[in-house]
Amino acid sequence: MEKIRIGLLGFGKTGKLVANEFIKDEAFSLSWVVRKTATDHHDYASRVLGYEYDCGKLFSVEELDHNFRMENPVDALVDFSSSDGVRLYKNIIGKKVPVITAISNYEPADLDLLNSIAEHAPVLYSPNITLGINVLMVAAQIIQKIAPHADIEIVEEHFKAKSEVSGTAKRIAGVLDLNPKTHINSIRVGGIVGRHEIIFGLPNQTIRLSHESISRAAFGQGAIFAAKAILGKPPGMYTMENIIAKMFEQNIPVY
Amino acid sequence: MEKIRIGLLGFGKTGKLVANEFIKDEAFSLSWVVRKTATDHHDYASRVLGYEYDCGKLFSVEELDHNFRMENPVDALVDFSSSDGVRLYKNIIGKKVPVITAISNYEPADLDLLNSIAEHAPVLYSPNITLGINVLMVAAQIIQKIAPHADIEIVEEHFKAKSEVSGTAKRIAGVLDLNPKTHINSIRVGGIVGRHEIIFGLPNQTIRLSHESISRAAFGQGAIFAAKAILGKPPGMYTMENIIAKMFEQNIPVY
Amino acid sequence: MEKIRIGLLGFGKTGKLVANEFIKDEAFSLSWVVRKTATDHHDYASRVLGYEYDCGKLFSVEELDHNFRMENPVDALVDFSSSDGVRLYKNIIGKKVPVITAISNYEPADLDLLNSIAEHAPVLYSPNITLGINVLMVAAQIIQKIAPHADIEIVEEHFKAKSEVSGTAKRIAGVLDLNPKTHINSIRVGGIVGRHEIIFGLPNQTIRLSHESISRAAFGQGAIFAAKAILGKPPGMYTMENIIAKMFEQNIPVY
Amino acid sequence: MEKIRIGLLGFGKTGKLVANEFIKDEAFSLSWVVRKTATDHHDYASRVLGYEYDCGKLFSVEELDHNFRMENPVDALVDFSSSDGVRLYKNIIGKKVPVITAISNYEPADLDLLNSIAEHAPVLYSPNITLGINVLMVAAQIIQKIAPHADIEIVEEHFKAKSEVSGTAKRIAGVLDLNPKTHINSIRVGGIVGRHEIIFGLPNQTIRLSHESISRAAFGQGAIFAAKAILGKPPGMYTMENIIAKMFEQNIPVY
Repeated sequence: MEKIRIGLLGFGKTGKLVANEFIKDEAFSLSWVVRKTATDHHDYASRVLGYEYDCGKLFSVEELDHNFRMENPVDALVDFSSSDGVRLYKNIIGKKVPVITAISNYEPADLDLLNSIAEHAPVLYSPNITLGINVLMVAAQIIQKIAPHADIEIVEEHFKAKSEVSGTAKRIAGVLDLNPKTHINSIRVGGIVGRHEIIFGLPNQTIRLSHESISRAAFGQGAIFAAKAILGKPPGMYTMENIIAKMFEQNIPVY
Repeated sequence: MEKIRIGLLGFGKTGKLVANEFIKDEAFSLSWVVRKTATDHHDYASRVLGYEYDCGKLFSVEELDHNFRMENPVDALVDFSSSDGVRLYKNIIGKKVPVITAISNYEPADLDLLNSIAEHAPVLYSPNITLGINVLMVAAQIIQKIAPHADIEIVEEHFKAKSEVSGTAKRIAGVLDLNPKTHINSIRVGGIVGRHEIIFGLPNQTIRLSHESISRAAFGQGAIFAAKAILGKPPGMYTMENIIAKMFEQNIPVY
Repeated sequence: MEKIRIGLLGFGKTGKLVANEFIKDEAFSLSWVVRKTATDHHDYASRVLGYEYDCGKLFSVEELDHNFRMENPVDALVDFSSSDGVRLYKNIIGKKVPVITAISNYEPADLDLLNSIAEHAPVLYSPNITLGINVLMVAAQIIQKIAPHADIEIVEEHFKAKSEVSGTAKRIAGVLDLNPKTHINSIRVGGIVGRHEIIFGLPNQTIRLSHESISRAAFGQGAIFAAKAILGKPPGMYTMENIIAKMFEQNIPVY
Repeated sequence: MEKIRIGLLGFGKTGKLVANEFIKDEAFSLSWVVRKTATDHHDYASRVLGYEYDCGKLFSVEELDHNFRMENPVDALVDFSSSDGVRLYKNIIGKKVPVITAISNYEPADLDLLNSIAEHAPVLYSPNITLGINVLMVAAQIIQKIAPHADIEIVEEHFKAKSEVSGTAKRIAGVLDLNPKTHINSIRVGGIVGRHEIIFGLPNQTIRLSHESISRAAFGQGAIFAAKAILGKPPGMYTMENIIAKMFEQNIPVY
């Protein structure tokens, strides 16, 4: 089987972990990585990550010439850079190449640009692209509908240095129509990678859905899952949530 | 609105809690309770439960005469007695009256009888009729389909005196096609009412679904939920699982 | 062995559970219960609790005459009434009778009175008299000393209707010198009886100590534990915390 | 203040993380690392770990000559190699240099040798040297003494590929005098780094002590803690457990 050729934008801490997941996965080949700045002198992402072979040629933004996208074609672009990464798309990929982006926050102008790209290519955008969080989010919405009388609270735990409230927790509050100021309980201690819990309290029973992140490599796995899901899909904006919601629908148990 | 008239079979420890939930719920009126043996001298379930008014007239099995079901009509029967309770149905309810039964284990002959009753009335049978456990079960089956590479383990915690493995945990293992001997971890300590956890392990993240019982009154709430769900349904065998699965299907979030 | 004779002050919801624990424990005999108001017509606490024998004669406050304490001597008094219960002590027990009190909040004048009683009798006062909470509190203080760089957060979960922050959580924050306004996270959902968790976050590991209440009968068990601990002790004010701290000291493992 | 000079034996996956912790800690200076085999061409541990300066000179076992320990003196040796690492001590450190070793399992002959070294130097040996696990172990032993009627169960969760029962869980069972075959519940799913939970069940309450590993760097932190604890101590065998037990004793809260 032909491997799916991936271009990666962004090679920071998370970007490196994402590159590593695509390198390890046999269904994919990491064609290239475009990064802003080079802090090392390697030519390949694989070398930076400790592999003994060449894979994922590294380019810095300045090096990109107008032939780049013709000479380095890919089947999908994965973007873990920053809001303005979208402005590079026209230089690095063709108009119809599927895009998976996990940028935390888009500037309005950049989001507009992303939306215009979604007119001629499938674009999946999810700030938290892990499988688990999206599964939790969909399950929680359904449970809320089934047990509308349940009290719901969100607990999120992260490392001490994370000062703001988790964006994922806010998103969960949003889909459950809960006031994030009063229903999100943020715990900041030590080195916890990330834990989200949704508690449903009923008079005689309590349901808890929780997600624990072990490593940010989960974002790479999420990008792989997303890439497989949107390849071949019609143009448009997609999210992990609506892909997972669709999978819920298709996998209702039959008795 | 007309109240839904309920007949209850069984008035043991759980039966009493179930009676109490129906008494408290304004949508229902507890017409009568049929029990095997009388250990007290009250005439009404409500009095045994500490209420200052009469509700849920108590009958012992011996008292039932052939006019009982004509003189004491109900809209649904709730059965928390034992396997052979089903043999009394013909004496206490009409042929088409919906039945909700939560017997732990049916003898084969009694189950056959129950099935024959389901030919002309809707019969919902679930040994664990709590809302939460059934929500967990359906969600777990879907997650397993979405993440088939996840390792799954079941943990169940109960009070020290419970010697056998939880039937609910076995049922969860069954629907997930896991070997109960190797995938159920049973903890027996102190007075834990009941806790079930399903753990989905992925390389970089862990999802946990858990259900904690606070009181067995949750069975009463489950029976109320079930009664509302099957009233007016066509004859046939139903389970909480397939009712909940249907509710999952109807409540897939749309974006 | 002679049974320890107990007098109980208070017969509300928790008082009844406490009475029941003393009735069930073979080391004790519940001599009497003094209560404010009678809502039933039983003569004995045991009868109210469903036992078929007489135990724990019930008295209402008005019935107490000046001979009461001479005619109904006890070895210890257990007080689950309210702040002003202490004003009755002179009428119901001798000056040197040990007292176990678990009143949530004392009015200053009543606390003064309690302190004066402690000049001639051992008095144990703990608003949360459960074994587990006090074990947690002492262990947490020691861990904080051993790992002073750990970040600490307190989570407390209770039923929806409990509006104020848990007094126990505030007490935990107090002994750990944490600002209760910023370090206590209160979850209010459904019917959770009570759960307290103390989280210690270190860069590469997390320690959690948690306590889950199954039933308020734990207060009765705590009172039994406390009664055994202070019988024969010299006069003075005691708390469960310092008794447990002393037991920690005496049970340091030796290798 | 003079920095404490550390020699490290072992530079495998965990050894590297341990080296990194000592490099980052200002109280220490990592003098050298002795390793079995060189899979890279760096001269310094710091370089392998991505630092831009030289620290922790790397030696392979073959390079060690008889002048090594004279020319490369250290204040303490940290051993994360394997059972036979102890045979090198005479070549790399002086007779009185404190040793911290975290080897999982010693061969009997090697353990004998370690014991003979403890005759003239303080030697701390703990297979699980993390602070948290040892705190849990000591706290659990005390709680068991305070609440001898509590039922106790151990749950340990690790990544799928870990086939054997956790040695730490067995050690916990050992100090609590529990049969490891019946009281340890092992969960093997996904990529869980390591989680141990000790559950104390009482009739009306449950106490849980849990420890979650976020990264094996916790071993490095444990070694740092241990090094500070045994420097200046008299010769003899020490364990993290008895150091932590001693710290419990010294930190009993006073009221």
